[in-house]
Amino acid sequence: MHILSAASALPGPPVDNAALARRFGMDALWEQWVEAFIGTHARHLALDLESGKVVTTLADLAADAGARALAAAGVTAGEVDAVVLGTATPDRLMPATVNIVADRLGIDQVRTFQLQSGCSGAVQALDVARQLLLAGETGTVLVLGGDVIARFYDVARDLTRAAPAELVNYVLFGDAAGAAVVSARPAPGSAEVRALFTRLVGLGREPGAVLEWFGPADRDDDRPAATEDYKAIEKHVPEMTEEVLLELLRAVGWTDRDVDLVLPPQLSGRMTRLITDRLALPAAREVSVVDHAGNCGNAIVFLQLERALAGLAPGERAIGVSIESSKWIKAGFALEGGAS
Amino acid sequence: MHILSAASALPGPPVDNAALARRFGMDALWEQWVEAFIGTHARHLALDLESGKVVTTLADLAADAGARALAAAGVTAGEVDAVVLGTATPDRLMPATVNIVADRLGIDQVRTFQLQSGCSGAVQALDVARQLLLAGETGTVLVLGGDVIARFYDVARDLTRAAPAELVNYVLFGDAAGAAVVSARPAPGSAEVRALFTRLVGLGREPGAVLEWFGPADRDDDRPAATEDYKAIEKHVPEMTEEVLLELLRAVGWTDRDVDLVLPPQLSGRMTRLITDRLALPAAREVSVVDHAGNCGNAIVFLQLERALAGLAPGERAIGVSIESSKWIKAGFALEGGAS
Repeated sequence: MHILSAASALPGPPVDNAALARRFGMDALWEQWVEAFIGTHARHLALDLESGKVVTTLADLAADAGARALAAAGVTAGEVDAVVLGTATPDRLMPATVNIVADRLGIDQVRTFQLQSGCSGAVQALDVARQLLLAGETGTVLVLGGDVIARFYDVARDLTRAAPAELVNYVLFGDAAGAAVVSARPAPGSAEVRALFTRLVGLGREPGAVLEWFGPADRDDDRPAATEDYKAIEKHVPEMTEEVLLELLRAVGWTDRDVDLVLPPQLSGRMTRLITDRLALPAAREVSVVDHAGNCGNAIVFLQLERALAGLAPGERAIGVSIESSKWIKAGFALEGGAS
Repeated sequence: MHILSAASALPGPPVDNAALARRFGMDALWEQWVEAFIGTHARHLALDLESGKVVTTLADLAADAGARALAAAGVTAGEVDAVVLGTATPDRLMPATVNIVADRLGIDQVRTFQLQSGCSGAVQALDVARQLLLAGETGTVLVLGGDVIARFYDVARDLTRAAPAELVNYVLFGDAAGAAVVSARPAPGSAEVRALFTRLVGLGREPGAVLEWFGPADRDDDRPAATEDYKAIEKHVPEMTEEVLLELLRAVGWTDRDVDLVLPPQLSGRMTRLITDRLALPAAREVSVVDHAGNCGNAIVFLQLERALAGLAPGERAIGVSIESSKWIKAGFALEGGAS
């Protein structure tokens, strides 16, 4: 599989920690705490902060990113053989957002799949695309990923009384979508996926992150809508990242000195720094976006790929890792820059 | 791809139209209208009708169906190389229900994918499994599909004042899950998938069915949670079914006289009879479950396959068709009975 292009779409201007603190009545101390312990400085939100209304949909963002990726690859809508979208936050349960996006891009008469997925969703979507290409019935796939976590921002809530764990959700995430055009054949400037895997490792383990939806029968349900086990995440994600890296290196026969670019997991600015320090790849430049885009769930890897493709010289090597803490999924890929 | 086994799981006892009428304060006239114009006599619900609480989850049903399918195929958890689940109504947005089901079945260290899908979701899940098998990295896949539409039953509502379109949703659907074990190699009693496709045909078309979810920021949103364009569905689904049938026959070189079993779309008892009459396959026995299980969304095709495999003699031929009205997807497959 060759990645011909990657692109992203972010809603509105960046919202920094000071703007969030103002909106939710939090003080300067809280803002400093976010800077130090979350390490994420800004994110884009599909929300109008004043009204609390979601003003940008996942379909808006994904169609935008998809159009950019197609244009960058020089691929027309009619040349797309399949569309795969990964998201944890579809606009609706039905129709699947992927089909709305296909319509907006003028894509029709092809397979479309939408994965319900978390942080490893982009790699899962790339994996499905890769299997489609290997199966031989499909030549070019538009792969999309994105999340609009803004649906979980309740601006009517008094956050000054909220538990710290809930507050974290208001600063950790960002809204975005990303896209990549992949093909069985290389093109000028494309990168080859030398290895890629996604794998559930959740047997007997409690979920590290839960995101609920509510139907008409459970609107009054007072379950928390989003919960995370940060202790488990901080403990397991760095070690799982290292395991994925080592497995990828073995699969392609590279040493840690061969890695020119590393695309680490993007939970928060601080977590990403902890992980990158631990990996200690001697020659690798880091491709991270979380500091200024937040944790964008299914979009993250595409945002990283967009930067990586721009900086990956022919023959240079990149490793990307995603860890999904929801029910614990390992995911990663090894890329090599093709001829320009 | 060979289907080694298929199985299903239904929650609780069947709920007939009289029981629903009693629960929601509807009269005998309404009950007669349901019998005549919907033509569905009963369905199983994951809901306790008295309390209005959802007492069975999609994970419960899918794990149950999955265990039965694995047992019927004589395949152990450790022999499963991938799990694919299709649903419109996941238990949560994260973790994906497929990963909870895998855990319950003792499946780990493999690819898992969950498709966000409607009535054609079972065929989409089978399509992903087929692509995995064709790609050659995977030998045996557990394919699952199911829906718990009970999350949309608001027992606090006064249905005597509800619009007819909303009332239909309370009688049309049923809760269920189904499973199939598929493999690149045949086994005694398995059926070979000779052709299978899913294809978006939604370009420029309004959705025929919409299902919403609600987050913390939109719990007070008064959008209807489930809406259908029944006129469009009644007009398009029968003609699309015929188109899928003809395309499948062409693909495998069969005539309409070669079809021994037909698995038609299962929107409602009445719609299925309209469709089957229109197809007029001279030699085909019909495999329908909607009369007594309702429209079970992503489970339906597995319920049909369970019956079909039991009745498909070696060399006999079956055609299955699913039409998704959400954003209009054509899906279908052609099966041939293998050696017993």
